[in-house]
Amino acid sequence: MSRIDIPEGSLYGLGNLPYGVFSTAGTQPRVGVRVGDSVVDLAIALNDEVFAQPCLNAFMAQGFQRWVEVRERITELVAGDVPDAAVHRLADVQLHLPVEVADYVDFYASEHHASNLGRLFRPNAEPLMPNWKHLPVGYHGRAGTVIVSGTDIVRPCGQRKAPDEDAPTYGECRRLDIEAELGFIVGTPSPLGSPVSTSDFARHVFGVTLVNDWSARDIQAWEYVPLGPFLGKSFATSISPWVVPLLALEAARVPTPGQDPQPLPYLRESEPWGLDIDLSVTWNGQEVSRPPYREMYWSPAQMLAHMTINGASSRIGDLYASGTISGPEKEQRGAFIELTWGGKEPVQVNGEERAFLLDGDEVVISATAPGRDGRIGFGEVRGRILPATEANR
Amino acid sequence: MSRIDIPEGSLYGLGNLPYGVFSTAGTQPRVGVRVGDSVVDLAIALNDEVFAQPCLNAFMAQGFQRWVEVRERITELVAGDVPDAAVHRLADVQLHLPVEVADYVDFYASEHHASNLGRLFRPNAEPLMPNWKHLPVGYHGRAGTVIVSGTDIVRPCGQRKAPDEDAPTYGECRRLDIEAELGFIVGTPSPLGSPVSTSDFARHVFGVTLVNDWSARDIQAWEYVPLGPFLGKSFATSISPWVVPLLALEAARVPTPGQDPQPLPYLRESEPWGLDIDLSVTWNGQEVSRPPYREMYWSPAQMLAHMTINGASSRIGDLYASGTISGPEKEQRGAFIELTWGGKEPVQVNGEERAFLLDGDEVVISATAPGRDGRIGFGEVRGRILPATEANR
Repeated sequence: MSRIDIPEGSLYGLGNLPYGVFSTAGTQPRVGVRVGDSVVDLAIALNDEVFAQPCLNAFMAQGFQRWVEVRERITELVAGDVPDAAVHRLADVQLHLPVEVADYVDFYASEHHASNLGRLFRPNAEPLMPNWKHLPVGYHGRAGTVIVSGTDIVRPCGQRKAPDEDAPTYGECRRLDIEAELGFIVGTPSPLGSPVSTSDFARHVFGVTLVNDWSARDIQAWEYVPLGPFLGKSFATSISPWVVPLLALEAARVPTPGQDPQPLPYLRESEPWGLDIDLSVTWNGQEVSRPPYREMYWSPAQMLAHMTINGASSRIGDLYASGTISGPEKEQRGAFIELTWGGKEPVQVNGEERAFLLDGDEVVISATAPGRDGRIGFGEVRGRILPATEANR
Repeated sequence: MSRIDIPEGSLYGLGNLPYGVFSTAGTQPRVGVRVGDSVVDLAIALNDEVFAQPCLNAFMAQGFQRWVEVRERITELVAGDVPDAAVHRLADVQLHLPVEVADYVDFYASEHHASNLGRLFRPNAEPLMPNWKHLPVGYHGRAGTVIVSGTDIVRPCGQRKAPDEDAPTYGECRRLDIEAELGFIVGTPSPLGSPVSTSDFARHVFGVTLVNDWSARDIQAWEYVPLGPFLGKSFATSISPWVVPLLALEAARVPTPGQDPQPLPYLRESEPWGLDIDLSVTWNGQEVSRPPYREMYWSPAQMLAHMTINGASSRIGDLYASGTISGPEKEQRGAFIELTWGGKEPVQVNGEERAFLLDGDEVVISATAPGRDGRIGFGEVRGRILPATEANR
């Protein structure tokens, strides 16, 4: 038995306690919690088989009261001595996809991002569609290609047609991009025909991850009318391995920037669910953007209310993402297509002019937020671009 | 032991042998095969635990060679005497969702349907988008709301805005519609980075179901720009309980009607995978449409090749649907919005003029195709409209 060391100023103190799924050499993936630079094996520490599962789904299924209780138990446990067998150094573990993803939905909740993309994709039209300020626009993505941080991204191939070309060609994506987002994980399901009101958000959403919604802009631009993005997105969506409990984000809650026109009653909130989370995007080690989540027009409570208002059920493990987080300033844009204005205004990355991703590039998205006592961290979502597979070029 | 009676002219003879998941009073769901008007319990008849599962996924996971072998074993078995404990009358069983659906994708592969919808949704533009004849347009739908035939459909609520209204209002869907489609179920997965070529289609797709992609046209028309359909579709997608093996459809294979321009190489086929399947749509018992699958522009082999060409993996239980099946004739249109031209040309249903679905209406989609020795049937996908939930109106 020994006390877990929490370094002064750690982003992973008792106010955070994010959950993840880890393994050590030769062992099965199981649920742990991050404390400082350690990972606590909850199956051992709490002597509970629900944490011996290779994903968080079974624990999340136990419901909101249990999420509160386990958080309290972990807090007590970590304040005292923990069995040595339950404690691993972060550097010694492998982290896995934390949840078995049921459905994956991606929203489009940043006014700055939606306006920028509108200008870039439809230069001769109003940037925001007429519906945008009335409902959180979203669409379903591919749950089967949600992968954990650290998984390499193979450059996708597909059909692309530049505006000055007569016909599409097949080949490697030439405009490979990122989208820096937050992801919300549903822990409490809702049955068919039972919309989740904005005030029930915290009982349904278990926690938050970072998301990189990798985007092949040239494939997307050609394919997306009229039914939306498909292969331009479905090759990979990376999420961070640590799920920050919504319970850790009380101090980060802020009102959304203001909604005009007032949304329809089912989208109104009795308490704020904007979140004051600061993201950071680094490209080959250099920070190129700091997207501010607090600038998002629609809150995650509004997204869940909207997603279920038609009677659609939600399941344990549903993941819905915010859409690219972009603030009003250029250096707050969460996608390279915006940051470099379609490639026309390159950014300096380690002294080179860069627009879209090259083979070998690595992108890391991280984030912090105010916590109970000091800032808390979300870990990171990291991905490196590998060349397109020879057979597919 | 006794011989299973197969009525003369049955659509469920030895050339069909569709798989489903059934239960009898007080028993657990398990895998069966339909023979005539009987259901054979395969866990008992073949003495194999893989059929004691509540879905086809574990059996499908055993791969193509096993699908061929089991089909041969069932054929031998049914030709002789079958243990009485393995045989149930169809009328005595309850049918369940046959697969655990992983990802759900919906295509848009009928030129007639896409052209009609283009004219209706975008009256001042070219009906087909420039990409339509170059790739099978598709999008991801909500896997969690794929339900089995017979499940009632509660009228969805949501935001709608008629063209002559200034702002959207919240309320019941006023233009509730169907889409008659086929669904293709992936039985052999493909890993990230390994596209499935058109020639590998039959080793990956296990079988075919009927699909009714219920559609709230007013919700869809308001929400769908620019990211595609979302709540207008996600409240329910019904599938038929019987999965007709692709192995039963050899006699139904036909070339697609002809593709001009010639598709890019990854979409070309060395053998035809168009399917000569005749659908029938009945509305409150009266047949209102006969959509011909053979008229579809893109084949299901092309859809799977396209869906994976960017490196996206596919999983056991992935379901992809064809999109509405509409032929060139009015009475071959597989959606009521087309059949009634946006409601402006009502059809006669039991002596009443009708356009969209009213509460209490029931729609049944069925289909037949040429089989090895006589026509084979797909069963049916049936759904009845219930009023919107009081709380949500």
